[in-house]
Amino acid sequence: MPLNPRDRGFAYGDGVFETVRVAASGEQPLWPRHRARLVGGLRALGIALPDESRLDAALNEGVAALGGEAGVVKLTVTRGVGGRGYLPPVPAQPTVVWQSGGLPVWPERHRREGLVLGLCQAPLYPDLLAGFKHLNRLPQVMARREVARQGWDEGLLLSTRRQPLEATSMNLFARFANHWWMPDLDAAGAGVAGVMRAHLHETLLQRGEKVVCDLRPLSQLRTADGLFLCNSVVGVLPVRKLAQWHWPVLASVRELQQSTETFLAGSLKV
Amino acid sequence: MPLNPRDRGFAYGDGVFETVRVAASGEQPLWPRHRARLVGGLRALGIALPDESRLDAALNEGVAALGGEAGVVKLTVTRGVGGRGYLPPVPAQPTVVWQSGGLPVWPERHRREGLVLGLCQAPLYPDLLAGFKHLNRLPQVMARREVARQGWDEGLLLSTRRQPLEATSMNLFARFANHWWMPDLDAAGAGVAGVMRAHLHETLLQRGEKVVCDLRPLSQLRTADGLFLCNSVVGVLPVRKLAQWHWPVLASVRELQQSTETFLAGSLKV
Repeated sequence: MPLNPRDRGFAYGDGVFETVRVAASGEQPLWPRHRARLVGGLRALGIALPDESRLDAALNEGVAALGGEAGVVKLTVTRGVGGRGYLPPVPAQPTVVWQSGGLPVWPERHRREGLVLGLCQAPLYPDLLAGFKHLNRLPQVMARREVARQGWDEGLLLSTRRQPLEATSMNLFARFANHWWMPDLDAAGAGVAGVMRAHLHETLLQRGEKVVCDLRPLSQLRTADGLFLCNSVVGVLPVRKLAQWHWPVLASVRELQQSTETFLAGSLKV
Repeated sequence: MPLNPRDRGFAYGDGVFETVRVAASGEQPLWPRHRARLVGGLRALGIALPDESRLDAALNEGVAALGGEAGVVKLTVTRGVGGRGYLPPVPAQPTVVWQSGGLPVWPERHRREGLVLGLCQAPLYPDLLAGFKHLNRLPQVMARREVARQGWDEGLLLSTRRQPLEATSMNLFARFANHWWMPDLDAAGAGVAGVMRAHLHETLLQRGEKVVCDLRPLSQLRTADGLFLCNSVVGVLPVRKLAQWHWPVLASVRELQQSTETFLAGSLKV
């Protein structure tokens, strides 16, 4: 599927994407959440997709291409080909592209012992389209380069007020004495509202656990019992170290990790 | 030149671009400035282009495609094709793409009588890569949509502190009693440092004029004698109205507009 270089996805990052984990059975347990975020992002950008079933069709093509293996399907939807200048063409013909591939390889050590995080130097600035997974991802690219340069496993991005927000491609949770905590990305007006974050939030609430969503200074993380990161592809990974602070892998985090893996593997036997 | 959908320009906006005006003679008077900004942006992004003469070669192909007509050549350079995830591939093979087209049509009324501006609602947030012309342009796309919706000629973008920074695709200058003024985009950490802005800044300094570059509250614009916008393709356009404020077209702005047009037309006869 070659792309027109006049596609506004290429010219301006004028679009959105999702990376959907697919079980060996072909199930995509998080697809409804991915789809809702994709549609929400298109609406925020003012990109009219006349027929949303194109999204399902593209996903299904990507799943079929996996040939019965577990993997991921990436969907990208842009405003389509445009003329010169920032003004969107009217009417626009959105571009829908899928790519499929195997599951990323995460070291077993990360799953079991947890990640070593560093603090990314640049703040994550507010973003007019915060929460959505749009194609303007240079802050994440720059932060991910820093992670590699420093030899960390992942990097924590702080707000301009030095409040923890998220990692470069994962969302953050922490366990405090009597509650779970997640950064309030809406209040920060920055970051990506991950679908695994939403799934875990709902899971914890359904179990009757207390979950607080607000913004806290970095220093408060030190008083947490434990931290973990999550995303829709790798699930839950404990954090064992951030800068000079250390945390154990909590039994409650291990349990969440295992139930998430079961959830992502789908309910059908293969 | 079809594009690989795995190009990181498409995936993350991981690249930079320039839109270069070409005179009928084939001259590109601002190319050295465009080239310097392009190379600076690549360096900031950590994109290694082994041979910078590829930029000149691509420009020349675009100029040749204009077939002796005045027009513009757009150059886009990305980090090239990558795997999944934000981490850049090593080594990367940068993508260099050119597109050529005619000069945009600006109503003669805009040139003569000036533009009607509106105030864009969303602030222009700081940007880790401010100044460079990278491919993360959603703030400009969203602002340009607002301009069209409101029926303005252009839109003024303010900082989070409501200081005027730039228009959606043009830089701002104002004339005050004893000096010219331009917003200090470095200090704001936001906006695009236009090559025409740099050219005019240098031109004014060479003429012995006083030019102040700082950040000012929006209300100070009301006390300006006159305003204009500029970019490397259309040159200088006076501003006659912003919200409820009006300005005349100053003789000094008219002169700057004419000398800029002469400059952009090139020194060679055709």
